Amino acid sequence: MMFERVAFIGIGLIGSSMARVMKRDGLANTIVACARRKETLDACVKLGIADEVTSDYTASVKNADLVVIATPVGTNEEIAKIIAPHLKPGAIVTDVGSVKQAVINAVAPHLPQGVHFVPAHPLAGTEHSGPEAGFPELFQGRWCILTPEPGCDAAAVEKVKAFWLKAGSKIEIMQAEHHDKVLAITSHLPHLIAFTIVGTADDLAEDLKQEVIQYSASGFRDFTRIAASDPVMWRDIFMNNREAVLEILQRFTEDLTALQRAIRRGDGDSLQTLFARTRAIRRSVIDAKQA
Amino acid sequence: MMFERVAFIGIGLIGSSMARVMKRDGLANTIVACARRKETLDACVKLGIADEVTSDYTASVKNADLVVIATPVGTNEEIAKIIAPHLKPGAIVTDVGSVKQAVINAVAPHLPQGVHFVPAHPLAGTEHSGPEAGFPELFQGRWCILTPEPGCDAAAVEKVKAFWLKAGSKIEIMQAEHHDKVLAITSHLPHLIAFTIVGTADDLAEDLKQEVIQYSASGFRDFTRIAASDPVMWRDIFMNNREAVLEILQRFTEDLTALQRAIRRGDGDSLQTLFARTRAIRRSVIDAKQA
Repeated sequence: MMFERVAFIGIGLIGSSMARVMKRDGLANTIVACARRKETLDACVKLGIADEVTSDYTASVKNADLVVIATPVGTNEEIAKIIAPHLKPGAIVTDVGSVKQAVINAVAPHLPQGVHFVPAHPLAGTEHSGPEAGFPELFQGRWCILTPEPGCDAAAVEKVKAFWLKAGSKIEIMQAEHHDKVLAITSHLPHLIAFTIVGTADDLAEDLKQEVIQYSASGFRDFTRIAASDPVMWRDIFMNNREAVLEILQRFTEDLTALQRAIRRGDGDSLQTLFARTRAIRRSVIDAKQA
Repeated sequence: MMFERVAFIGIGLIGSSMARVMKRDGLANTIVACARRKETLDACVKLGIADEVTSDYTASVKNADLVVIATPVGTNEEIAKIIAPHLKPGAIVTDVGSVKQAVINAVAPHLPQGVHFVPAHPLAGTEHSGPEAGFPELFQGRWCILTPEPGCDAAAVEKVKAFWLKAGSKIEIMQAEHHDKVLAITSHLPHLIAFTIVGTADDLAEDLKQEVIQYSASGFRDFTRIAASDPVMWRDIFMNNREAVLEILQRFTEDLTALQRAIRRGDGDSLQTLFARTRAIRRSVIDAKQA
């Protein structure tokens, strides 16, 4: 038994997958699911992934030795304020947000002395949302990045790490700011671009749009999958990793402008040179066993 | 037996997959593979997908009742000029290029009276190239778009259509210019964007680049697969569908600029509204059984 009482605040794809891991491996004596919507709580009961459910944040964290904040990151400050006075001394608070510095800034100042905050980001997900979408293998073989602040309790970090190892993840410890920079490139920019191109297609005249959907397998389809990710979660990511996203976006648009110019001028050599380089990167991704 | 003698000019992923279908279903008495590189021809012999091989374009088409041009589209005019005087009267010439109007402009004027040109574009592929990469199921359940010009011999169109049906494709007949517009959106723009973002990542400092590869599963990975497609083939696509690509690219960059502005100004509502719309498009793609 790893934890006596675990509270999930927010229990969608990620939270419910974590709860499933805990149930599967017997890692928690009691799992409490806290969500605002009654349908979410009903689903948790039906799925058997929570022992208790409540829509009351303060009640949910009472006596919990682990609190998992698994809501869109924009809600985290409010949640931290509400739960802080009710946290058990020695409790561990963790999260699963896709941005880390903003979450630390939002949560850490509100937590009382003796409560340990261990921010985490499992690099796993699907385009589906809600507790029904979760499954315990979601984290298998995937990275989980922890970004504890200097001075964070080592035993608390170890405990969170132990959970993610049980979930099958590979662990990396990183500074929050660096995490946000890397993820802006590997995740946030790709999502932003996918949202954009699918939005561009959505603005087409209806006939043409239907054809684009019909022939989407030729490339567009892959973008629609990415652009189907949870709208509120992604709104909050962009609002909370603004600088890093805008910086890499600026580089991207410069590069796109250069390509646009090459196409307009009929400069095939520049295109071919770039395309040969990008093909080599694919090889690196395969070599890193990330393909 | 559908064809007596079929000549493939260029026999990479697409050509070799077509040859495999013909071998599997006994659709051709003799298959001739023509390629410039000796290794390609040796591979065809070794794979058993061609009965004869040659690097001589004119020899390859002699007595062929079907000639398949399956090289990057930038080579098509030169090939048409070379083979035209050697084509058998009544022969069908087809191609597999990802752009159609430019191919028609490059090929049709050179073909003699009595030779029938039936342009085709199978919407199928992988990021791999070369005859070894082909497989006969590549076209199964995928669209193949034919763009014959008005006045094209109906029997020739039916014959090409019959081959693609045997390959398992769904057929659509379309005007070449319209094809190019639709494909600019569904295929060419997504590829251009993927090439760009992977190129942007390739320009990062080495340490950061390694991390981007390590954590690529969070979104970037999907772009590397698209950006690993054949460099010469894609150079030629952009060079030969310039106007349609530039037009949709212009719309895309406008939309991206609007998103960039929303992020900079902290306008979360605009982001969320867009992301909800793009999620709906995914549903349409799934409903169209293209997911």
